[in-house]
Amino acid sequence: MMRLYGNRRSLAAMRVRIALALKGLAYEEVGVDIFGGEQFSPESLAVNPQAAVPALEDGSGPPLFQSMAILEWLEETHPAPALLPGDLRGRARVRALALIAAADSHPLLVPRVRARLGAQFGAGEPQLVDWSRHFMQLGLLAAEAHLARDAVPGAWCHGDAPGLADIVLYSLRAGHEQRGGTLDGMPNLARVFALCEADPRFAAAHPLRQPRAPKP
Amino acid sequence: MMRLYGNRRSLAAMRVRIALALKGLAYEEVGVDIFGGEQFSPESLAVNPQAAVPALEDGSGPPLFQSMAILEWLEETHPAPALLPGDLRGRARVRALALIAAADSHPLLVPRVRARLGAQFGAGEPQLVDWSRHFMQLGLLAAEAHLARDAVPGAWCHGDAPGLADIVLYSLRAGHEQRGGTLDGMPNLARVFALCEADPRFAAAHPLRQPRAPKP
Repeated sequence: MMRLYGNRRSLAAMRVRIALALKGLAYEEVGVDIFGGEQFSPESLAVNPQAAVPALEDGSGPPLFQSMAILEWLEETHPAPALLPGDLRGRARVRALALIAAADSHPLLVPRVRARLGAQFGAGEPQLVDWSRHFMQLGLLAAEAHLARDAVPGAWCHGDAPGLADIVLYSLRAGHEQRGGTLDGMPNLARVFALCEADPRFAAAHPLRQPRAPKP
Repeated sequence: MMRLYGNRRSLAAMRVRIALALKGLAYEEVGVDIFGGEQFSPESLAVNPQAAVPALEDGSGPPLFQSMAILEWLEETHPAPALLPGDLRGRARVRALALIAAADSHPLLVPRVRARLGAQFGAGEPQLVDWSRHFMQLGLLAAEAHLARDAVPGAWCHGDAPGLADIVLYSLRAGHEQRGGTLDGMPNLARVFALCEADPRFAAAHPLRQPRAPKP
């Protein structure tokens, strides 16, 4: 069975949980307390020298790391159901929508950035919440602008089935919602996220629905 | 001919320049003054509603956006020479190494983050340089730790030919070097970057070698 090193509050681990569920793959999750520094323990560094989650072990080599690389690997090793469309331009669109969240938004909220904002600028929790909400909002607005400009038939981000863009944008929305962000002016994303919420493979991966999750 | 919307100082546009050169594809580059706000002009937003570079136009649909999605699209549309290895685990490794730079490091240095650091925390240029160098150093050290742990035969990051990881890590190194970062304790990356510097397809894409580049 595959083993996911994650954290119930990690939006990057959440993406992998959703993809594993969509593809119907069994796994066990090992919690790494990334908010308490456990990612720097010798055991954790042996799993992922970057000191980050998620990592995915399938028993056949070093653990895989970086959520987007793990998602692409899951897609290549377990092609059905597909998370990327078949046409090359569609694949580029779906990857780019996902990367707005995975590259340009979420990396601004992770523990190493929070720690640096505190150390370099004295940021406390209220400033960190403002900072995080700002960049999540910016990312979601950018994705909405792309969805609004280049409409593709189907109720999900790209067609009639959930895929990579839905997974990664929904993970960003989870953090955005927890910090009080609204979807005003984002009708396309509101439609997509309602579908996600109604799908237990998405909804069960939500940080607030993991074991030992904090009260909302 | 393809058209790349970029900026000579953009490390993300640099990646696309290198990939186009490695694959021998002709293109013209249109400069977008992302340090002066031109990405927010109506013309630029029509190209990329995210207000960011790079974007790549090939004439057959809306411009492609997000550098990693563009690189994957170039790989799928022009498979030779390959930027990703053939085996699935190798592909995951190369993508993950690239994402350390493209997702976890470079997005912390871009104009929208610099602007927010100034507006929210009053950061000036010296603080921004410290901030940027810190995250570039952290990213390169993480990549080095992975390269050191999981050695793969060959002088590049993964084998005997340049690929996605070399391209994206070299783009991060360009920014790191410009801010005075050294490669102390990073023998694997030092070896790879020496190969990049010796290869005109990499070296010619460097921000300091573009038209109107600032003096080093």
